[in-house]
Amino acid sequence: MVDIATRVYNHTWKLDPIVRSLLDSDYYKFSMQQLIRRFHPEVTATFALTNRTTTVRLADIVDEGELRAQLDHARDLRFTPKELIWLAGNTFYGRERIFGPDYLAFLKDFRLPDYHLEKRDGQYELTFAGRWAETTMWEVQALAIINELRARATMRALSKLELDILYANAKAKAWEKIKRLRRLKDEVGVLKISDFGTRRRHGFLWHKWMMEAMADGLGPDVFTGTSNMKLAMDLGLEAIGTNAHELPMVYGALAKTDADLLKAPYRVLEDWARIYDQNMRIILPDCYGTAHFLAHAPDWVADWTGARPDSKDPIEGTEELIAWWREKGRDPAKKLVILSDGMDIDSIEETARRFKGRVRIGYGWGTNLTNDFKGCVPNGDPDALAPISVVCKVIEANGRPAVKLSDNPLKSTGPKAEIERYRRVFGTVGMKAHQVLV
Amino acid sequence: MVDIATRVYNHTWKLDPIVRSLLDSDYYKFSMQQLIRRFHPEVTATFALTNRTTTVRLADIVDEGELRAQLDHARDLRFTPKELIWLAGNTFYGRERIFGPDYLAFLKDFRLPDYHLEKRDGQYELTFAGRWAETTMWEVQALAIINELRARATMRALSKLELDILYANAKAKAWEKIKRLRRLKDEVGVLKISDFGTRRRHGFLWHKWMMEAMADGLGPDVFTGTSNMKLAMDLGLEAIGTNAHELPMVYGALAKTDADLLKAPYRVLEDWARIYDQNMRIILPDCYGTAHFLAHAPDWVADWTGARPDSKDPIEGTEELIAWWREKGRDPAKKLVILSDGMDIDSIEETARRFKGRVRIGYGWGTNLTNDFKGCVPNGDPDALAPISVVCKVIEANGRPAVKLSDNPLKSTGPKAEIERYRRVFGTVGMKAHQVLV
Repeated sequence: MVDIATRVYNHTWKLDPIVRSLLDSDYYKFSMQQLIRRFHPEVTATFALTNRTTTVRLADIVDEGELRAQLDHARDLRFTPKELIWLAGNTFYGRERIFGPDYLAFLKDFRLPDYHLEKRDGQYELTFAGRWAETTMWEVQALAIINELRARATMRALSKLELDILYANAKAKAWEKIKRLRRLKDEVGVLKISDFGTRRRHGFLWHKWMMEAMADGLGPDVFTGTSNMKLAMDLGLEAIGTNAHELPMVYGALAKTDADLLKAPYRVLEDWARIYDQNMRIILPDCYGTAHFLAHAPDWVADWTGARPDSKDPIEGTEELIAWWREKGRDPAKKLVILSDGMDIDSIEETARRFKGRVRIGYGWGTNLTNDFKGCVPNGDPDALAPISVVCKVIEANGRPAVKLSDNPLKSTGPKAEIERYRRVFGTVGMKAHQVLV
Repeated sequence: MVDIATRVYNHTWKLDPIVRSLLDSDYYKFSMQQLIRRFHPEVTATFALTNRTTTVRLADIVDEGELRAQLDHARDLRFTPKELIWLAGNTFYGRERIFGPDYLAFLKDFRLPDYHLEKRDGQYELTFAGRWAETTMWEVQALAIINELRARATMRALSKLELDILYANAKAKAWEKIKRLRRLKDEVGVLKISDFGTRRRHGFLWHKWMMEAMADGLGPDVFTGTSNMKLAMDLGLEAIGTNAHELPMVYGALAKTDADLLKAPYRVLEDWARIYDQNMRIILPDCYGTAHFLAHAPDWVADWTGARPDSKDPIEGTEELIAWWREKGRDPAKKLVILSDGMDIDSIEETARRFKGRVRIGYGWGTNLTNDFKGCVPNGDPDALAPISVVCKVIEANGRPAVKLSDNPLKSTGPKAEIERYRRVFGTVGMKAHQVLV
């Protein structure tokens, strides 16, 4: 029996939307947006897309009309009553009503702000200017759109059998990882992994499949949740997230003096703690260099639940944190380190073994969880769908340039002169270049 | 959109038939049946199922009611007008009208004869008694039913995700083989592979998928066809096949004297050549020992197109044939050796390299093509779906026991005393036991 209606419907799609819900974004965008709304409702901030994998000429691959159609579609979205009820009623990090009535009222009328798109040197210049509380929301969805459009464009050349083999290979590969994680759990006793892969995902349906496979294959004791709010809601998973560089970057940009700039990273934490409980207090120490951040942190920073080293080698970054907590007289074994920078099964295994009993580790598994198609394309280049390193970062706030130094100078962002100024202010202790893969 | 009708239909199946067409069988059953009809229309012959993998207790795994329902359903089948037109109109081995009007008239009213089924020691005793021209047709379909029911029973314990991973693993594994075959083709220049896997297949849909993958992945120059008549018709592939042990076994059983018995294997060839052209003249030399067969063969046997060694190590068996052709003054490079005994990618590679330029090789790839799920089950025993060595062999003709010696004594069939008698008559030169895997 052919369902003629479905077939005709499938053949007459005007658009296959990539983002179909404003909830199809990361939990931390919501927790940050609430903070921005509360403390900086009038600050403006521009976000911009950057493809660090310059060998992949996105503007030659992704059709501009398609990209505009997807961005426009995302702009047409509103939160649905069901979604707002879930945001109001769901428990996040063990806490009810984490999102206040003011913020929920704001979301009720929220839509993504306008964008600016043009082609330049084979890449897309895609920027979002306006109120920070609005532009912040584009980050994840713009990236998800770009990544899925690129995958779709690549897959257009594949036959039905090739697509079949492609997904078979990817599923087989995913299952191998799940099996290794099970053995790792048996070996190390405790293993906590959550999904941070929305922005870099191969596509929404694959993301959803992977969440179901992780949930089924590992259970809630190991697979602790997803950063994706829509999938958390739809699949009954925990929503997971920390906070991002945009906070210290904007606080830094707004700082009037070098002295203010030096305090900016800790101001972020102060504001954060005014809204969020201990469970959600995870330091992101590397924005202007981890060594400087830790050396100058007020003592109360060491009381936070944990930290997320995001640009150092995970072992180095974790050892540095352990040493710092110990120095501060805190027990590292009670602290939580979130590893989320380009992790994959090998580095998960290595760090889980190394830090067993020494510190709690939570993995925020991103690109290599939701977009690992390396070696999976059956004919031609098997790596044609290998992920690219594309980011969407704040570039200015209230007209002043935003800067990230990072522990890895290859991940620095901002105008050159400003980077130099920040490096003078914060120093460069502990910074080291290493290749950015994803 | 849920297609409610399809969903309800799927949930109210009385039976999911394994065999849905009498054409869902091997080409050689038809070419043999035509010969049997022409020369031995009144001979009776009983076929019996034997599971050589005794560790797998089929009667404990496969429900008797389900087995009967599937066998009964197969018995209800008739050739459809479309199928008879295809048999009459299609070209087989380059020849039109290979099936004569008498035989096609016989098929028009043909149905599978009755069966006898009982459980014994955890296995099924399944026999088919009656006219040879009718019972012969059960072989492939009885085996396909048993193998698919066993797979279904095993898969009943799997969750939806596990089934998804199972087939992803199997597809990924199949594609790896196809890629290796492409490289092998590039290396050796000529590679000819056809499917002989109907009887041992995992299931009809998987069989069909594999035929499409082979056709797409290798093209007609390498993937030369399938023994399965229905898939040949439906997918526009060449139908491929040789002839089976049942011919010399029945001719042997019917022999009145030891002298007649010694001539029986060559009588088969004489009758075969009365119907079929050079293209289809492939010797199956091992029924009573290849060494004896070749040593006593009339000179004209060496004029046949090729041979199918079926129970020796493929290298040994092929070398023996090459030496024999050379001894007979024939050019082995022009001869065709069909390797079809438990071949898999490793042995295909090994033999293709070894015999490059020395003899033409055609692969009849069976079990490991259509039922390779070893290592594919995601949870529990990864080999739970590994194939079993189950056969359906003729055991008597006109009330006299049928015997196969084979080059491998572990593959001998028949009553012990008769095997002894045959061994006295034919000798045991060149026979050697080695493990039967599939």
